[in-house]
Amino acid sequence: MGFNAETKGVYPIAATPFHADLSVDWDSLDRLTDFYQDAGATGITILGIMGEAQKLTPEESREIARRVIARARVPVVVGVSNPSFAAMEALAKEAMDLGAAGVMVAGHAALRSDEQIAAHFRNAVEAIGPDTPWALQDYPLTLSVVLSVPMIQRLMAEHPSCIMLKAEDWPQLEKLSAIRRLQADGALRPFSILTANGGLFLDLEPGRGSDGAMTGYAFPDMLVELDRLHRSGERDAAHDLFDAHLPMIRMEQQAGIGLAVRKYLLMRRGAIANDIQRKPGSSLTPQGRAEIDYLLVRLARKDARAQV
Amino acid sequence: MGFNAETKGVYPIAATPFHADLSVDWDSLDRLTDFYQDAGATGITILGIMGEAQKLTPEESREIARRVIARARVPVVVGVSNPSFAAMEALAKEAMDLGAAGVMVAGHAALRSDEQIAAHFRNAVEAIGPDTPWALQDYPLTLSVVLSVPMIQRLMAEHPSCIMLKAEDWPQLEKLSAIRRLQADGALRPFSILTANGGLFLDLEPGRGSDGAMTGYAFPDMLVELDRLHRSGERDAAHDLFDAHLPMIRMEQQAGIGLAVRKYLLMRRGAIANDIQRKPGSSLTPQGRAEIDYLLVRLARKDARAQV
Amino acid sequence: MGFNAETKGVYPIAATPFHADLSVDWDSLDRLTDFYQDAGATGITILGIMGEAQKLTPEESREIARRVIARARVPVVVGVSNPSFAAMEALAKEAMDLGAAGVMVAGHAALRSDEQIAAHFRNAVEAIGPDTPWALQDYPLTLSVVLSVPMIQRLMAEHPSCIMLKAEDWPQLEKLSAIRRLQADGALRPFSILTANGGLFLDLEPGRGSDGAMTGYAFPDMLVELDRLHRSGERDAAHDLFDAHLPMIRMEQQAGIGLAVRKYLLMRRGAIANDIQRKPGSSLTPQGRAEIDYLLVRLARKDARAQV
Amino acid sequence: MGFNAETKGVYPIAATPFHADLSVDWDSLDRLTDFYQDAGATGITILGIMGEAQKLTPEESREIARRVIARARVPVVVGVSNPSFAAMEALAKEAMDLGAAGVMVAGHAALRSDEQIAAHFRNAVEAIGPDTPWALQDYPLTLSVVLSVPMIQRLMAEHPSCIMLKAEDWPQLEKLSAIRRLQADGALRPFSILTANGGLFLDLEPGRGSDGAMTGYAFPDMLVELDRLHRSGERDAAHDLFDAHLPMIRMEQQAGIGLAVRKYLLMRRGAIANDIQRKPGSSLTPQGRAEIDYLLVRLARKDARAQV
Repeated sequence: MGFNAETKGVYPIAATPFHADLSVDWDSLDRLTDFYQDAGATGITILGIMGEAQKLTPEESREIARRVIARARVPVVVGVSNPSFAAMEALAKEAMDLGAAGVMVAGHAALRSDEQIAAHFRNAVEAIGPDTPWALQDYPLTLSVVLSVPMIQRLMAEHPSCIMLKAEDWPQLEKLSAIRRLQADGALRPFSILTANGGLFLDLEPGRGSDGAMTGYAFPDMLVELDRLHRSGERDAAHDLFDAHLPMIRMEQQAGIGLAVRKYLLMRRGAIANDIQRKPGSSLTPQGRAEIDYLLVRLARKDARAQV
Repeated sequence: MGFNAETKGVYPIAATPFHADLSVDWDSLDRLTDFYQDAGATGITILGIMGEAQKLTPEESREIARRVIARARVPVVVGVSNPSFAAMEALAKEAMDLGAAGVMVAGHAALRSDEQIAAHFRNAVEAIGPDTPWALQDYPLTLSVVLSVPMIQRLMAEHPSCIMLKAEDWPQLEKLSAIRRLQADGALRPFSILTANGGLFLDLEPGRGSDGAMTGYAFPDMLVELDRLHRSGERDAAHDLFDAHLPMIRMEQQAGIGLAVRKYLLMRRGAIANDIQRKPGSSLTPQGRAEIDYLLVRLARKDARAQV
Repeated sequence: MGFNAETKGVYPIAATPFHADLSVDWDSLDRLTDFYQDAGATGITILGIMGEAQKLTPEESREIARRVIARARVPVVVGVSNPSFAAMEALAKEAMDLGAAGVMVAGHAALRSDEQIAAHFRNAVEAIGPDTPWALQDYPLTLSVVLSVPMIQRLMAEHPSCIMLKAEDWPQLEKLSAIRRLQADGALRPFSILTANGGLFLDLEPGRGSDGAMTGYAFPDMLVELDRLHRSGERDAAHDLFDAHLPMIRMEQQAGIGLAVRKYLLMRRGAIANDIQRKPGSSLTPQGRAEIDYLLVRLARKDARAQV
Repeated sequence: MGFNAETKGVYPIAATPFHADLSVDWDSLDRLTDFYQDAGATGITILGIMGEAQKLTPEESREIARRVIARARVPVVVGVSNPSFAAMEALAKEAMDLGAAGVMVAGHAALRSDEQIAAHFRNAVEAIGPDTPWALQDYPLTLSVVLSVPMIQRLMAEHPSCIMLKAEDWPQLEKLSAIRRLQADGALRPFSILTANGGLFLDLEPGRGSDGAMTGYAFPDMLVELDRLHRSGERDAAHDLFDAHLPMIRMEQQAGIGLAVRKYLLMRRGAIANDIQRKPGSSLTPQGRAEIDYLLVRLARKDARAQV
């Protein structure tokens, strides 16, 4: 299944593993790619914010894209957001040439009015090329870009190549419903909606019309199962699974330290060798690790995946 | 027990109930005051952000303070944050004259550097009077004021009348530890720390040194029990109780719609007659209510308090 | 001439004079009212940001409105922006009952998307009443609200009671032209545009279609003459007058300290007794005053009004 | 004369010229380099915000640095600010290897508290290397980073390699005096202060202790003469020259459109072939050009340099 307006399922946001000396850990990157696809992921999204894309050199970004695309058996989406449209253009072209399924684009904090946002995405689509499929990231908590429903409607009308909304507004539930209502009414063309926001509302979002998840929670296998339960209508079971993981999901969803939790869990689960981040980054103190370990033990009582 | 540097326990952030015509519902305010103190609250905090203080006229604020203070058997803390120091001074004086135990003060989004923040709180303390006990609100997600640990150290050194930190930074856990370490080392005088941030980390904060909670979750009775479990060292039981409520806590902690959830739950529990908010406000759609109702049913299986 | 969609001329933004003890100086307020109208002002705007409105109590705001409206022979516009719509409603009603010609309304920093801005002004118009004439303040540098031309078009369409744009975007010139073009094309109804932004572009704005100035420069008599020169087509003379004042205009246009310059000049010109500001405020150091005095001496060589 | 703590004079912020197809115009870059040094500039600063550095690819940035450094007979300072410290490190190393005199570093909008700012510059100095001389950019209006005087004191104490402050706070004059007072008192080590903010206060800044200008006004020859007049104590003549240029300086100092004015003037003066900007950019409309042309004619009556 490709990366298109009908996409359903789970696209993990990939972490970027580093060695202790902060160089990219290519072996771990391979292992992590396998970890995601072996978990049943529908696709993989690389070079997002939580992939520390903004801390890489262009050469590193390109090489990560090359490596993951070459190894993955599932579609790979490449984050190309960059203050420089010239750099965005370069990375998008390289990624698509390497076989990426599409790209992901976000706005930035200087965009306020709808006109400014519209201009930004016109420039972005010009940079990535009008035929490159892309996901629109709606993540105001981190990006400080506020996309109203009419604005999403406008962007989707202006850019047929946008085939997915990475939905992580906060709050989000009513917005999903509003978008799906417009689509049902024919006022908005169809597109895929994968939700994120650290996964904090993944129990309720499918009921509002989401098609799956695009988030980096360290248990992508749980995300895949949750997606399956939702799809098969096992609502209570889905909530049971979600509730068991919520105490941990919440730890990962924190600003700053959340990525340290995620990388620590990925390391504990054997997916990467080292949980270190490039600067500016955060790391868990011994007490912080002890808290995660304790939550893991509690989680393992309900979900064997947490027995690490 | 008073409102001072040794304060422990639960201070609910009180909602402000309105009639359908958006006038203050005084009967519900009385009922809500009883609801909080009957739940075992150590004190009550009124006129905070979640009390829609910024939507009231000065006359209404004064009357709410008068009414709650007169009825409550526990200490009442009054939020006095205001862009106008003259208005802050007026409300603080009235509240203290009426018998408030103290006030709560926050910064605002225009404050960026430590020097600006320090100047703001010097002006605020001048406004409320140097002898008025006050709680410092550290809530960057909503207030956009970033208080580093050294900055808290500085504010506490400059203002002996500040006897409490309403701690709701995000992330928060390491910050609590850092503050408590400084106090243990004698580099920072003792003060009470009640945590908030919608209660999303109330399972772990006591292990980092918090003294209790100052948050508005619609189950203050649960917060009181949780506080007791922590204090008596029943860690697993505390986590079990917290985990049962976390799916609901998360709903209330949302920006915007969170207050709609809270008021709806307070209404369902009989504490207020109407869940309406003044503008700018939000309200639950039928589907939104159905989600909360479903989560309530799930919660009621584990906690009888949710059988409403 | 009233305050309506045909308004032309100069509406000074009035300062609020205080005594050394920071109480309102009512005698100076009277003198200042006369100073503005004797300068030839078409109207007076009170309780704006530079009038320190946000530092007053509601009682003081009301009394200032009463006093100025009672004394002025020209229309008085009252700034009613307030985080509380209840407070906005109260002040607007009082002001209109006292004989104000209209009110002025701004947004605030939390408004980002066009939808949020539209909702804010719907609530504001509900608060001030649908029949109250009002000026829309477009001042992103201070208010952090970005109003695109289509957004202004939308607000003007939704609110027939908005009869003036206080235009102080930055940059501003092309925006004026764009608005006037839409009006010429019939895509936007007519309304008055008075410009502000400290007056920094008053030489060029009339050529773009502005109808006059609504700013607080301490030489309102110069603003009136400048307006007359523009209207009579004396372009070079207008620029000569403007250029002579620009070194001083620029001093007043500064953030923070600009109001200290303005109040110092008003004091030097005899319009108010004391240049003190309420907190948070700024004041000129001796060197700062010496710089202004030096610029005054230079200005006085070209404009006798500066001989104080 | 080198780039060090004793630096005085004028460092123009270089524009980056593009062809109509938006590729870098290397011939114009050479011509512009000569234009600056023939104007008497003490040094040249490249790849700043007004040099559209954020719109270039890393390869272009490197090539621009190589080209200007190779051609210039004066010290060249290279802006290396980048969200990625890895990219900052790469560019700084390349620039210094190519013979740059030093680099310039700024913060970014996500930095709020003093602790966050301190951490950022620790990471930046680690990236550029502890021996690379650098200028600290203090430009809150655009960067949204607020550096208080104590914070500057702290950064200068922590980083001996910082030898210059690019001072463009707003307001700025008292801050210059405060810094110079601390240096006179021995509480702060000496460093060079060049001012910017579009040059809007260049008449008064030397009286507050500035050592010159680092700004991109299209008349660097005027900046050099102004600097000489200040240095020789010809205060009135300095103000006369400044006042003649202030109407134009103000046009360039505008957000957004200011760079269009600057590039248009550079083109009119023959320093570059095309005034086009990369996206997101702005351009002058015919009316906008006519305004600049008119201001040029007025300026030419007082300063022959404007006869173009």
